Amino acid sequence: MRKINITGTFLDEISHDIPHQNWGKKEWSQDFTHMKQMGIKRVVLIRCGYKKWLTYPSQVLHKQEKAFTPYLDLVSLFLELSEKNQMEFYFGLYDSGRYWTSGNYKDEIRINKKVIEEVWELYGHSSAFKGWYLSQETNRNAGAIIDLYAELGGYCKTISGGKQVLISPYIDGVKNISQYTQQTETTTSISLDQHFKDWEEIFFGIKNAVDLVAFQDGHVAFEELAEFIQVNKQLADQNGLHSWINTESFDRDMPIKFLPIKWDKMHFKLEAAAQAGIQEALTFEFSHFMSPQSAYPQAGHLYQRYLEYKNS
Amino acid sequence: MRKINITGTFLDEISHDIPHQNWGKKEWSQDFTHMKQMGIKRVVLIRCGYKKWLTYPSQVLHKQEKAFTPYLDLVSLFLELSEKNQMEFYFGLYDSGRYWTSGNYKDEIRINKKVIEEVWELYGHSSAFKGWYLSQETNRNAGAIIDLYAELGGYCKTISGGKQVLISPYIDGVKNISQYTQQTETTTSISLDQHFKDWEEIFFGIKNAVDLVAFQDGHVAFEELAEFIQVNKQLADQNGLHSWINTESFDRDMPIKFLPIKWDKMHFKLEAAAQAGIQEALTFEFSHFMSPQSAYPQAGHLYQRYLEYKNS
Amino acid sequence: MRKINITGTFLDEISHDIPHQNWGKKEWSQDFTHMKQMGIKRVVLIRCGYKKWLTYPSQVLHKQEKAFTPYLDLVSLFLELSEKNQMEFYFGLYDSGRYWTSGNYKDEIRINKKVIEEVWELYGHSSAFKGWYLSQETNRNAGAIIDLYAELGGYCKTISGGKQVLISPYIDGVKNISQYTQQTETTTSISLDQHFKDWEEIFFGIKNAVDLVAFQDGHVAFEELAEFIQVNKQLADQNGLHSWINTESFDRDMPIKFLPIKWDKMHFKLEAAAQAGIQEALTFEFSHFMSPQSAYPQAGHLYQRYLEYKNS
Repeated sequence: MRKINITGTFLDEISHDIPHQNWGKKEWSQDFTHMKQMGIKRVVLIRCGYKKWLTYPSQVLHKQEKAFTPYLDLVSLFLELSEKNQMEFYFGLYDSGRYWTSGNYKDEIRINKKVIEEVWELYGHSSAFKGWYLSQETNRNAGAIIDLYAELGGYCKTISGGKQVLISPYIDGVKNISQYTQQTETTTSISLDQHFKDWEEIFFGIKNAVDLVAFQDGHVAFEELAEFIQVNKQLADQNGLHSWINTESFDRDMPIKFLPIKWDKMHFKLEAAAQAGIQEALTFEFSHFMSPQSAYPQAGHLYQRYLEYKNS
Repeated sequence: MRKINITGTFLDEISHDIPHQNWGKKEWSQDFTHMKQMGIKRVVLIRCGYKKWLTYPSQVLHKQEKAFTPYLDLVSLFLELSEKNQMEFYFGLYDSGRYWTSGNYKDEIRINKKVIEEVWELYGHSSAFKGWYLSQETNRNAGAIIDLYAELGGYCKTISGGKQVLISPYIDGVKNISQYTQQTETTTSISLDQHFKDWEEIFFGIKNAVDLVAFQDGHVAFEELAEFIQVNKQLADQNGLHSWINTESFDRDMPIKFLPIKWDKMHFKLEAAAQAGIQEALTFEFSHFMSPQSAYPQAGHLYQRYLEYKNS
Repeated sequence: MRKINITGTFLDEISHDIPHQNWGKKEWSQDFTHMKQMGIKRVVLIRCGYKKWLTYPSQVLHKQEKAFTPYLDLVSLFLELSEKNQMEFYFGLYDSGRYWTSGNYKDEIRINKKVIEEVWELYGHSSAFKGWYLSQETNRNAGAIIDLYAELGGYCKTISGGKQVLISPYIDGVKNISQYTQQTETTTSISLDQHFKDWEEIFFGIKNAVDLVAFQDGHVAFEELAEFIQVNKQLADQNGLHSWINTESFDRDMPIKFLPIKWDKMHFKLEAAAQAGIQEALTFEFSHFMSPQSAYPQAGHLYQRYLEYKNS
């Protein structure tokens, strides 16, 4: 069986649950070098802002959401480092943490349209600007999620001359549980049938606005993973979306939320994705959980284990 | 606007919620050197003992509270290192963890008066012994907290010939939540008006016994912080107490309790304190959350980010 | 008073609550060297498998429990490193995480008998294979725990020509609380009398099948520990079991579950065991919590503190 390679990573800025590493320009520059050496060729900003915290000095969000001005323009830095390392950069939209999460999808769309315009104006000239990431993650066809994806994805394309649009949904499995509890499992999980029905509708509704889908692989029991990935791949294929896997490099089974995953688990998940015919993986995310300079030394060992596997 | 500098740190011994670093004399000596290089000129022992664990071999607490004898006399070590590095040392009183927390303020006062006598006898000769820290933290005018502060602060002064007395209260904000839950926010918060009323009474009641106040800056939403600090500063000024800020260097917004704070957040909080006219900051605390030799490598990066800011 | 030395450690594979360090052969080899330098002469595999995750490629567990094949044969590696470092290796049985925990002790025994046969066939030839560890931990005489220990211990001896059998129970004290909560204490604790009665029965029932007992020392309040250890030692002596202590090197009192313990606490616990006449300690466990190459740098400092004590 063909091996699947990790060719991309999220950049967890703004993080809302992983403690920050406090890197400056020098450390970020080194980290992109580590990424490149592992075979990473694309980076995805998980979100450009969350509530009041931003990655770039947005006039729109400062004025309309009273967001704080960041100490450093990370979008500018990440684009510069992407150019330098010949990587593709995907820009993650703003997550208000209040509009769409309380059912108000219209204002989530409204504010993000302005962000899209502002960002394209500020950074669209960069040769590394490859596409967009819709940062509102979902697991079911709930609320107006189809409208949100279709409208924002479509607007990204309109503004940017058709740049690619990526989403990274998850599965409503036994490990879909708040990170703000020390529990690791719930007793309820979506059935494969219901998951199929939900995503049949979602993919159909967004197929003109979204090009790429990378399902998160950490929310179901390991033994259930393969069949969920196969359903996801099949439905994506039917609707013309290209599939990657989002292989999580942190461990959801431990009381400490979150430290790097055990290599055996990551290996298991990569093989499950390869079996479903997926050819490339993104990971969430390199800098905390796989980097040799991570504050978690387990990450550097995971990097070595992955490289041994890749080169074996 | 004038920048505010971090000129002091707590020493988290005895810790009751931050895992221990297991440093010996050599590591503590190095850490004081790191502190000095960052501009720190005063250290505050957070408490000399908590329940049965002690920082110094107290006969009083061994006999009356059945406390355990510590492996190393940390008070002696910290005074020696303070002298060597020309730093001011503040001694934190004993926290029984049972008398005052169950409403029995009299026994908290009784046992601490004996501690004050013993400590002054043992360590009062040190040229670094600058003052006292009342380790019983409060956020409201509840229980007999005014009596506790007034009586213990007064007794410290009487015994030591008027040495300075410091307190570090907190605000009963949305992040005032037990560290023994993985939640990060509660739904209730004190109003600014009620906070004003409580602290108007407290400051008035303790003004002859307490000289210095350093409010903790981590319990309210970031956007609310500036106005709370301004109220605190105003009320302290009215009653003749000098204000520092206690800028927390750990992150209260994350499921892992606790790792170093994101620099952007610390920067935001320092600016809020500077706007209120505060000129110096203590931090809780350097050795875990800002030290280049911390077990959390994020701390060393925070140290670098702070130095870049300070020297910019 | 004689000092007690740490002469053994558990190997936390398969872990079910401590995040993995992702070590390969090189890192494990280095760690055994670190162990040896600290005086460790025996290692105990905590369990050979937990639910679907295994330490060795077991045909039995793959077929009957649908367990996953491990990336690396850790049992083989640990035996090789034990031989190289003249250490004794104890093999921990399989923990189904479902049979015995739901009252079905018969199937836990059934599957483990096959594991014992398979393991002895695969690894029994190793000169380092010193004995067995019954991985089903208990604190009370509940369920059919006596049957489980007696039958599995007896079977280990029968198959292996009488190799030693070890258990490591715990005490149902105030810190016997799920690791999947951030609380650190419960309000109920077993009485010393009830503990005595339970273990009088258990030891009597297993004395022909179990040779060694190492009680965990972390579940009761520090001030209660000495008397519990004395009861344990006395009852073990009466029934001809040899006692070690299992001194936990992680801290149960902190919101982060789990980081290395404060040296003062470990020192306190070692002294309590020495007072009861115990001569050697195992620790749970060296590689995360005491190793100079642990991902938690506090562990390396604990290593230094222990060595200073041992050599003082």
